[in-house]
Formats: sequence, structure tokens, C-alpha cells
Amino acid sequence: MNKRPLIVVTNDDGYSAKGLKELISVMMKLGDVVLVGSDQPMSGMAHAVTIQTPLRVTPISNEMGFKEYRTNGTPVDNVKLAKHSLLNKAPDLIVSGINHGSNASINIIYSGTMGAVLEASIDGIPAIGFSLMDYHPEAEFGHTLEYIERISKRVLKDGLPKGVSLNVNFPKKSDEPIKGIKVVRQAEARWVEDFEERTDPFMRKYYWLGGHFVNGDNRHDTDEKALHDNFVSIVPVQIDFTAHEYVGKLNF
Amino acid sequence: MNKRPLIVVTNDDGYSAKGLKELISVMMKLGDVVLVGSDQPMSGMAHAVTIQTPLRVTPISNEMGFKEYRTNGTPVDNVKLAKHSLLNKAPDLIVSGINHGSNASINIIYSGTMGAVLEASIDGIPAIGFSLMDYHPEAEFGHTLEYIERISKRVLKDGLPKGVSLNVNFPKKSDEPIKGIKVVRQAEARWVEDFEERTDPFMRKYYWLGGHFVNGDNRHDTDEKALHDNFVSIVPVQIDFTAHEYVGKLNF
Repeated sequence: MNKRPLIVVTNDDGYSAKGLKELISVMMKLGDVVLVGSDQPMSGMAHAVTIQTPLRVTPISNEMGFKEYRTNGTPVDNVKLAKHSLLNKAPDLIVSGINHGSNASINIIYSGTMGAVLEASIDGIPAIGFSLMDYHPEAEFGHTLEYIERISKRVLKDGLPKGVSLNVNFPKKSDEPIKGIKVVRQAEARWVEDFEERTDPFMRKYYWLGGHFVNGDNRHDTDEKALHDNFVSIVPVQIDFTAHEYVGKLNF
Repeated sequence: MNKRPLIVVTNDDGYSAKGLKELISVMMKLGDVVLVGSDQPMSGMAHAVTIQTPLRVTPISNEMGFKEYRTNGTPVDNVKLAKHSLLNKAPDLIVSGINHGSNASINIIYSGTMGAVLEASIDGIPAIGFSLMDYHPEAEFGHTLEYIERISKRVLKDGLPKGVSLNVNFPKKSDEPIKGIKVVRQAEARWVEDFEERTDPFMRKYYWLGGHFVNGDNRHDTDEKALHDNFVSIVPVQIDFTAHEYVGKLNF
């Protein structure tokens, strides 16, 4: 009887992303892996679900020791499809990433990587998102792998509190070794958008979304601070948008 | 000199939705209205931003007393475009809706309507999402309009706390009059997905995302309870996914 854990892997950078391959290589040490990935890059897709068009799922043949499905859906669709239609038992862990680019602070709300993780947590499936502060397609992930293994093993062993999942971010590879792990809060930072206006060959204007990151949060217990100090940041996250301190104060 | 407030309106049901027209009619009483809408329905698009394709904006001629722009973006893109590129001053209020369908409890995280509202709050612009518990394209909105006017006037006058916006939901029209407004917390409810599997004319399988709503939250101070009791629910919302009670407890 097979007692290896069942681990679902997804991401938002597409099925050929280097970070995804690195994540699968770690997960194959820990359990039986099923990759449910999108057939297109899904960065910035947040918690979007596909309801205007039908979803399609293609089983992919590979000889790499894990099952693979490719969908036309978002990362959240992938988690829903995995849970409902593709697996014959509940997964023991869902992991997403390794994202090329930070999902710390405000980035979580735009992130397809973290959309998948939050969706898993709704049904009480332990879930972890892993992201690296390096957008480069050939980014160096080597320094993250021992931490990914350690954190995932721990979650497989002990689980996570009900409704809680983990947003794990790693500093970009540097000469200085990682100092350790800090469990911290989400920093209050934001993107100030800066659209780039261009003109197409038919003389029509179009825009590319861009922006610069502004962190005005000087507290010492934030993910941005931990990452700045070369720690791995872990934010335990949940889905509750309520601004609780104002529930009793506002009236209309 | 024009001292009327500048109000940006958007939604996720498309530019021809009845709920959008109702919302514009109320806002035109309160200020100068600019509609920045998507050229396609964007339900379920959550906090998605468009980064794989360029954004386009088309000014629309109408003789209805408000400015109108139509984009190929998401509701969050619309707010970003309005702030950055389409207005020559900061708006005094951004409203989104009136959504055809509830955005109470867990629905907020899937909602394009609320994506726009949360995005506005990142930059400190007062923002309100209005949603009706009735998906029908010809839903009756008449009972919501006095409340929308009252809540919007109040926010225009007093503003909202930093980083906080409002998720306002209305019961479906019934014979019983609305009992009033309750300021409450987001209920812990969820969707249990139930994909409908079909076969296309080319014998290929496809799926439609469906599901049923499960509310296991019996507390008396939730949005679902207020709506069930025929009150308007208002949840003050903010973007902080941190599960604060576990920040000091978890270690790895």
C-alpha cells in the first residue's frame, strides 16, 4: 500500500518555468506529485476563475515520474479541477511556485501563485506558495531548495491551522547566505502604477501596465523587512477582508 | 468653479448591465460621473491585472450627461487607468456595481466588482462596492437606490479610514421592506465546486465551473446573517491577508 503523500503542484508562470521545475524536483522527494498547470502564463491573474468560457483539461505524457495535466484555466481553476475532477482522493499538500518574482506584501493580492494557495485553504487543504524576489526567467533557485524541503516536510507532518496557508518568499540569490526563517506579517506596501503609452503600426494608442514599488511600512515584523535582511519570510495567511477594528465603529 | 465631487463608476457585469445603469443614475445626483468600464463581462476576475496583452481605451460618445471610457481590461485595470491616465485630478469616490449577484462572505475574493474597490483603497481613494443577491439580468434594484445614495453621500462627506473600503450587499427584492443597515464581519462560508462535464460536437470533453454555497458560520454579526434577516450588510474591508494570531505561534 502506497503511503507516500499526494502533492499537487501548480504555478502562474506557465508549464515551462524554471521555478516550477525546481519545485517539482523537491516535491518528488517528499511524495507522489501531480502537476496541474495552465497552458498559458497566468501572472497577475489573482483569484480569478473562468466562468465566461468552458474549461478544458489535457493529460500530458511525460516520463519524469509525475502525473501532469494542462488546463486553459487560471491557477484557482487548476486547484478546483484537481480537487473535484482529477484526483481520486484529497491531496495532502498543494504547493504553488516557485514564482519568478516576489509575492510579499501587497503582491499577494495580484498573484496567481497565491490565488491557488488561498483557494486550497478554503477547503482545508494544507497549502504553501513559494516565491523568489527575482523575475529573471533563468533566476537562481539553488539557495531556496533546502528551505522549501524543510517547510514542506513540516507542513506534511503537522498540518496547518484551519483556513490558514503560507506565503513564503525568498531573497534573490546573493553572496551572503540566507540567515534563516522569519514568521512575519504582510507589509503595508503598494505599487504606484506607471502605464507606458505606445502607438501601434495602425496609429492606435495602447498601454502596458507598469509601476514602481513603494514600501512605507517601517515596522520590524514585516515580510519586506525580513527579506531585506536576507531572511526567508513566511506569512501565515487567511481569507478575511474584514477591517475588524471598524466593525463596531462605523455606522450609516 | 465646479465643486461637484468627481465620481468614477465601474463594474464587472459589462457596460450594458442593468445594475450599472442604476448605479450611474444615483451617482449623477451626487457628482460628476466618469464611467470606466470593461468591453467584456469580467465576473470572477477578482483582482486580476492585464500584463500579458496591451491595454486599450476607447472614449465613448453618449448624450447621457457622463463621460464614458471602455477598456479591454479588468475592473482593477479600469481603476488603475482611471487614476493614472484618464482623469486630470484624483476622484473623490470610486463605486463599483451594482453587481448582479452577492459579493458577501467568500464571494469577495472572486469578485471583479470588489477587486476594483480594493484597488482604489490601496491609494486611499474612498471606494464602495454595491451588490444585489439576485443574478437575474432583469433583477429589481429599486429597493437599493435610497441606501446607495445615503451611504455614498456619507462617504463623500466623511471619507473612510485609511486603507478601508466598503463591501455593501443588498437582499433580493421581496415583499418585506429592508429593515435597515448592519455593519458586520465577513462570514466564513465557501463554495463547494461542482463542475458540469459536457462533450463538444468534436467529442472533446469540457467543463463548466459550478457549485453550491455552504455557510457554516452561525455567528450573529456576519454579512450572511444580516442579509438573511433582510438588512443591508456593510463590511468594512482592507487588504491584509496575515493570520495575525499565528504570526507569533508558528515556527519553522
